[in-house]
Amino acid sequence: MTYAIIPVNKLSKAKTRLIGALAKEKRGELILHMLDDVLKALDETQCQTIVISSDNLKDNMPRDIIFLDEGDRRKGLNRAVKYANQYAIKKGAKATLFIPADTPLIKKRHIEDILKLGEKHPLIISPARHGGTAILYRKPPDIIRERFTKTSYTDYQKEAEAKGLELTAYNSYSLSLDIDKEEDIKEFMIHGKGTATYDYLKDLGW
Amino acid sequence: MTYAIIPVNKLSKAKTRLIGALAKEKRGELILHMLDDVLKALDETQCQTIVISSDNLKDNMPRDIIFLDEGDRRKGLNRAVKYANQYAIKKGAKATLFIPADTPLIKKRHIEDILKLGEKHPLIISPARHGGTAILYRKPPDIIRERFTKTSYTDYQKEAEAKGLELTAYNSYSLSLDIDKEEDIKEFMIHGKGTATYDYLKDLGW
Repeated sequence: MTYAIIPVNKLSKAKTRLIGALAKEKRGELILHMLDDVLKALDETQCQTIVISSDNLKDNMPRDIIFLDEGDRRKGLNRAVKYANQYAIKKGAKATLFIPADTPLIKKRHIEDILKLGEKHPLIISPARHGGTAILYRKPPDIIRERFTKTSYTDYQKEAEAKGLELTAYNSYSLSLDIDKEEDIKEFMIHGKGTATYDYLKDLGW
Repeated sequence: MTYAIIPVNKLSKAKTRLIGALAKEKRGELILHMLDDVLKALDETQCQTIVISSDNLKDNMPRDIIFLDEGDRRKGLNRAVKYANQYAIKKGAKATLFIPADTPLIKKRHIEDILKLGEKHPLIISPARHGGTAILYRKPPDIIRERFTKTSYTDYQKEAEAKGLELTAYNSYSLSLDIDKEEDIKEFMIHGKGTATYDYLKDLGW
């Protein structure tokens, strides 16, 4: 089984680059709507989904989703993903699929494409803008360690090369657009119809 | 036959936002290398390629490419594309495919995907970043007029809706990345191995 891992940043502290565009409470709500869209894309796939956060989102999660408490010792994206990844390994995961919570344009077909690629390719990365990583697929889950930095794509490339691992790129416009800045919201609104995030932002007047 | 239309901005005036990153002459050379990559992607497809520019690039073009002189009265992206589009119509083109010269990550498979989509869909757009348009496929070529603005994606959406036309999005990370700013070059260098543009920029020390 492939475990999908979705870390959710503390809602009250998330998306600070949107301060000028959205009030604190709205930024938290925005994340939850984006998470909804990601969970919806995963819903009909064969993945077991793990959400990890230091907020108590457990009661808001559909029953079939595993919720992990990020806790104090697992803070930071790398640690949170590592913890969830180890959890998945303990549960017998053959592969893990990291998905950022803020990729509301993701669809079921992206995940199915990647799972299909994963049948033949052990390490798949989907580029985010500016050299980052959107999706990270690992089979087995410990094939490479977490490196969520600003230059993560290059970091993964280098480590894969050093280890003699094949790295497969899954290029997708939809996955490359995350929502960090006001201009990202504007761009999202052009392409986001049909998502919970779009409806939420539309109601706010975007 | 589908005619691919590639407008090339005047080399001496192009890519002014790269002034801090590349000298004028290098900016012109960069464009020619990006154009090479685009022409290479088109080479084995069934498209007839038209390059339109106010520079005299004719002698540098492979024989099977039609070169049109942009001339003074056809200046500006909209006019240049309109002129090439009308030329293609006169030649009996069933469809036209606008491709920016500065999409060096484009591959043959993107074009083939779009031509295949075009068998059933008359109007296909590939989003560029920030609400722009990368590729525009039109069948027949006069199905919608040129609108290369900063909000062109929305403009096409609105016009398509007003005309009752179906607009199909072809989402691609590779097509969405154009090279306008220094940070675009940096991002390109992460993903651009195997292109003429990459080799050129690498030689310059990028």
